[in-house]
Amino acid sequence: MDTIVKAGVKQCPFIIKNSSKLVQSKQVFTDNYVKCPVFKQVTRNFTTSCPRSQAAYSLKTEEKAKIQTHEKPQESQVFEYTNFMEDELVRKRADNSYRYFNNINRIAKDFPMAHQDNSNEKVTVWCTNDYLSLSKHPNVIKRAHEVIDMYGVGAGGTRNIAGHNQHCMYLENEIAKLHKQEGALVFSSCFVANDTVLATLGKKFPNMVYISDELNHASMITGIKNSRCVKKIFKHNDMEDLENILKTLPKNQPKMIIFESVYSMCGSVSPIREIVTLAKKYGALTFLDEVHAMGLYGPHGAGVAEHLDFEHHLKMGLKRDPEYKTVMEEIDLITGTLGKSFGAVGGYAAGSKIMIDYIRSFAPGFIFTTTLPPSVMAAAEEAINLTKKNISLRIQQQKVTNYLKLKLAKERDIPMLKNASHILPVFIGDALLAKKASDMLLKKHKIYCQAINYPTVAKGTERLRVTPTPGHTFEHCDVLVEAIDDVFTHLNIPRLADYKGVADLALFESGHGDRLWTEEMLKLTNNDLQDNVFADQREFLDSSKGY
Amino acid sequence: MDTIVKAGVKQCPFIIKNSSKLVQSKQVFTDNYVKCPVFKQVTRNFTTSCPRSQAAYSLKTEEKAKIQTHEKPQESQVFEYTNFMEDELVRKRADNSYRYFNNINRIAKDFPMAHQDNSNEKVTVWCTNDYLSLSKHPNVIKRAHEVIDMYGVGAGGTRNIAGHNQHCMYLENEIAKLHKQEGALVFSSCFVANDTVLATLGKKFPNMVYISDELNHASMITGIKNSRCVKKIFKHNDMEDLENILKTLPKNQPKMIIFESVYSMCGSVSPIREIVTLAKKYGALTFLDEVHAMGLYGPHGAGVAEHLDFEHHLKMGLKRDPEYKTVMEEIDLITGTLGKSFGAVGGYAAGSKIMIDYIRSFAPGFIFTTTLPPSVMAAAEEAINLTKKNISLRIQQQKVTNYLKLKLAKERDIPMLKNASHILPVFIGDALLAKKASDMLLKKHKIYCQAINYPTVAKGTERLRVTPTPGHTFEHCDVLVEAIDDVFTHLNIPRLADYKGVADLALFESGHGDRLWTEEMLKLTNNDLQDNVFADQREFLDSSKGY
Repeated sequence: MDTIVKAGVKQCPFIIKNSSKLVQSKQVFTDNYVKCPVFKQVTRNFTTSCPRSQAAYSLKTEEKAKIQTHEKPQESQVFEYTNFMEDELVRKRADNSYRYFNNINRIAKDFPMAHQDNSNEKVTVWCTNDYLSLSKHPNVIKRAHEVIDMYGVGAGGTRNIAGHNQHCMYLENEIAKLHKQEGALVFSSCFVANDTVLATLGKKFPNMVYISDELNHASMITGIKNSRCVKKIFKHNDMEDLENILKTLPKNQPKMIIFESVYSMCGSVSPIREIVTLAKKYGALTFLDEVHAMGLYGPHGAGVAEHLDFEHHLKMGLKRDPEYKTVMEEIDLITGTLGKSFGAVGGYAAGSKIMIDYIRSFAPGFIFTTTLPPSVMAAAEEAINLTKKNISLRIQQQKVTNYLKLKLAKERDIPMLKNASHILPVFIGDALLAKKASDMLLKKHKIYCQAINYPTVAKGTERLRVTPTPGHTFEHCDVLVEAIDDVFTHLNIPRLADYKGVADLALFESGHGDRLWTEEMLKLTNNDLQDNVFADQREFLDSSKGY
Repeated sequence: MDTIVKAGVKQCPFIIKNSSKLVQSKQVFTDNYVKCPVFKQVTRNFTTSCPRSQAAYSLKTEEKAKIQTHEKPQESQVFEYTNFMEDELVRKRADNSYRYFNNINRIAKDFPMAHQDNSNEKVTVWCTNDYLSLSKHPNVIKRAHEVIDMYGVGAGGTRNIAGHNQHCMYLENEIAKLHKQEGALVFSSCFVANDTVLATLGKKFPNMVYISDELNHASMITGIKNSRCVKKIFKHNDMEDLENILKTLPKNQPKMIIFESVYSMCGSVSPIREIVTLAKKYGALTFLDEVHAMGLYGPHGAGVAEHLDFEHHLKMGLKRDPEYKTVMEEIDLITGTLGKSFGAVGGYAAGSKIMIDYIRSFAPGFIFTTTLPPSVMAAAEEAINLTKKNISLRIQQQKVTNYLKLKLAKERDIPMLKNASHILPVFIGDALLAKKASDMLLKKHKIYCQAINYPTVAKGTERLRVTPTPGHTFEHCDVLVEAIDDVFTHLNIPRLADYKGVADLALFESGHGDRLWTEEMLKLTNNDLQDNVFADQREFLDSSKGY
C-alpha cells in the first residue's frame, strides 16, 4: 500500500500540473485510496516512488509558530481550553479545511439568483440542494402562508406534549403513500432521523450488526457509532464484499445493511435490488437513505427504489399491487429529507407500521424535541404533492443535467466523476485550488458553487459540486460552462485529457454516460400518470399517533 | 435500600387511596428513590415492608400471552424482527408508558385555544412550551410572511453549501447580544445543539470529564453518552456533592459542569452562581441549558443567569460593563431553544468567539445538516427582539403563574412540586391515573394538559405539567382550577393533605413559595428598560461565518 501511495503522487496529474501549489501527504493518499474510486485507480497504476509524498500537508512555518506547545500542564494549573481550541483551528486553516461561509440569500421570485451582503450584488446559485426549485414554488409558499396565518409559527411542544397536530399526520401519510410503506415519522432533520433511528435500533436489538457502505453520509456514521453495536464496512457499492461480510454472520443474528441510493458527493447510484436480494438471502434488514434521490427518480419522485420498477409504478400510480411487491416495498426503512427536493426542512423515516410505532416509542431524538412548525410541514406536504404529480419537473431537471454534462465533458474537456445521476462532481483534487476555483467563480463570474472539502469529502478529492435544477435555463448552463472553462484555464486545473494514461478514463464522465432516466422515460408527460396520483389520499395513520 | 423501597409502598398515599388501581414495583421505587426529591422523602420515612412491592408492574395475563417466547432462534432461522418489536411495544402498553398523541392544532387568532380532529372541537391548551405565546404574535407572523415572500420556504443547503444567509447571522447576533456572549450558533433544535456540542467537545478535549446534574434533559444525556468520555453524576442541585466530585479530579484535566437553569418537569432552579464559583475554583468549563428559562427571567429575558444580576443588567441594558463580569458572562456555553418562548423551532449555543468557531468547525450535527428556513430564523429573531423589549410579557406570565399556584394549593389542596419558577407540576404519581386525569380534562372539561410519563419523568412520579402564559387570562385560570379539582375528586387522586405525615410538606407548593420574580420586580414596566434595549444592534459576527 505504501508503495502504491507514494507512487501515486509522482504521476498524479494534480502534481504534474500544480506541483508548486499542491501539498500531498501519505495520509491524504491513504484516505483517498480507501474512499475515492478515482484515486483508487490513479494510485493503483503506478509502481515508482515519489519523495513528494513526504511533504505531507506539512504546516507552513508561520502556522507552526502559532501553535502553542502542549506540554502537559502542571497539576496545579488548569487546562488551557482556549489555547487548545485555537491550536486546532490553526491546524485547520493550515490544511485549508477551515470553512468560510458565503452569505447567500436565494431570491424566491428570481430563482436561481441570490444576493450577498448587499442586496444588489446578485449571483447565480449552482450548488443548492433545492433540486426541484420547490422552495420558491407559488403553491408551496401559499401553503406556508395559510398555515402560519391559521396556526402561528412554532408548534409549541414535542409530539407528545402539545406539539402533535394534523400537519404532522397529513405529512406522514403523504410520505408513507409516496414510498408505498405503511407508516412514516417526521424528525427535525434527516441527520437526526438517521442518527436517532440507527442509534436506537442498534441499542435495542440484541447483538445487532450494522453493515455499512464505506461512503455513507456522516449522519449514518454518527448513528452507527452512537449505537455502539458491531459495524462492518463494505466497499462502496461492492456486492461481492457485502456478501462476504454477510456470509460470516450467523443467520439468526440481527443485522442491517445501511446504504444510500444516490451518494451525494460523487453522484454514484447503489445497486438497490441486488442489496435487497442479499438481505433476504441472509436475513438482514435494509436501511436506505434516499435523501439525494427523492423528487428526482421514479415516475412519482419517490427515489431510485421506485425508479427500479418504473413501468410497474407508472402503471399502478400510488396504489400498491397486492400481487407484486416492488423493491421499494421490500425495503425495511427508507429515510429522506424535506430540506432538498421538497424545499423545506426536516427529515423522515418510512417503514412498516410496527417499525414506525417502535421508533416513535423509543427514539430519544424523536421523543425529546420540539415538532417542526406546522407551516413547514404543510409546505413540505404540498411540495411532495406537487412532486408526485409533476413528472415534468424531474424530466426537466434531467435534461438540464444531461445538457451540462455533455457541454462540459465534450466541449470543454472538464473532468467530472462519472455517474448515472443528477449530480455533477467537477473534480479539482486539492483544497486550496478548489476554494480558489469557487472564489473565482463567485467574484469574477457571479456564479456561486461552493468548494467541497474535508470532512465532506476525503482530502485530495476536493471538488465543485454542480447541482442543476429545472429552474436553470439552458442559457444559465451556457454561462456556467464558459465560467468553469475560464477558471480551469486561469488556475491551471487538470482537464480530462490530463488523466489519459494516468487514470482509467472510464471513471470520468464522457458526456454520454448511462443515465437512470432513459431516453424513453424522458418523453413522458404528466398526462401519462395514473388518475389516482391526482386524487386526495389524506388520512391519519395509526403509526403517527399510537393505536 | 430494599427495605426502604418496600416500606415506601405500604404507606405511600397513592397506594392508600388507589391500591386497586396502582401497580407499583421495586424498580419503580428504585427509580424514584434515585430521581425524585419527593419520593426520596416519602420512601425515606418508612421502615415496615409491604408485599405489594412484589406486584412489580407485572404484566397482565392477557398481555403476557401476547408476548412471544424469545427462545434463541436456531441458527438456520433468521431473526424475527417484527415479533421482537411487537413484544417490546406490548410491554410498553402493559406498564402504561405507551404514548398516544393528541391532535392539537393551536389557533393563532384564538390563543390559548386549539382544535382537534374536527376544527369545531375547541379545547384550551394548558401545557404548551410556547411560554410567551409569541408563536402567534402579529409581529412574529408578519416577519415570517415577509421572509417567505422574499426568500421562499427552505434554505436549500447546509451552512457551508448554499444554506448560509443573512438570517442565520442576524439571529446569531441577536442571541449572542442577549446573553452578552461573543458569538452564537444555530442548530436544527436544542436537542441537536446539546447532543452534538457535548459529543464533539467530549471527543476533542483530551481526557475530558463531564460532570452532570442527575436531572439533566435527555438531549444532554445523549450528548454525554455519545462523547464516550468519563461522566460523573452529581445529585440534583447538590453543591456539596458537586464539589466532592470536583475535588477528586486533577486540576489540569479538562472538565465541564453540565446543568440546566430551570428543570422543566419539576420546575426546580439551579444555583448557577455557586456552580460557576466551583467551576472557577477547580478549573472546569460550565455548560448551562437555559431552554426553559429564556424569555422568562432576567430584565431582558436572557434566562436565570441574567436574573441573578437583575439590577445590574437592568441598569446596563444590553451593554456589557467593562468593569464587572456578571455570572451570565462567566458561563462558557449557554444553550437554548427557539421553539419555546421564542415561538419557532431550532436551538443554539452561545459562548466565546473561539468556542463558537470551534463548534462551527468540528460538530457533525451542525456541519452536515440543512439550515433552518430563513423565515423561521427571522421569526425567531423577531421574537427575541420582542422579548427583550417587553418585560411586561414576563411579568404577566409570572402573575398568571402565581395566581394559579395560590388557587390550586390554598383553595383546592392540590399537590404541586414546589419551585421558584413558572412551571406547575401537578403531582399524580401513577402512569395510568395521570393519563386518566389528562383524558378527563380533555373530554369532560375541554382542557388539554398532557400526562407526563416515563421516560420523560421517572416511573411513579407521573404528573400533569401546567404551563401558564401571558395569553391565559385569570378567567382561563379559574376554569382550569375548577376542572383540576373535579378530576382529583372523580379519580380519587391524593390531595396535599394526604401527604401529611407521609412526606415532607415543605416539598410541595404552599401557594406562597419563594419566587425568582420578587414583588418589587413585578412592578417594573417596559419604561424601566434602558434605551439601548430598543436600539438596532444588527451586525454579522465573525464566528457565524469564519474569519
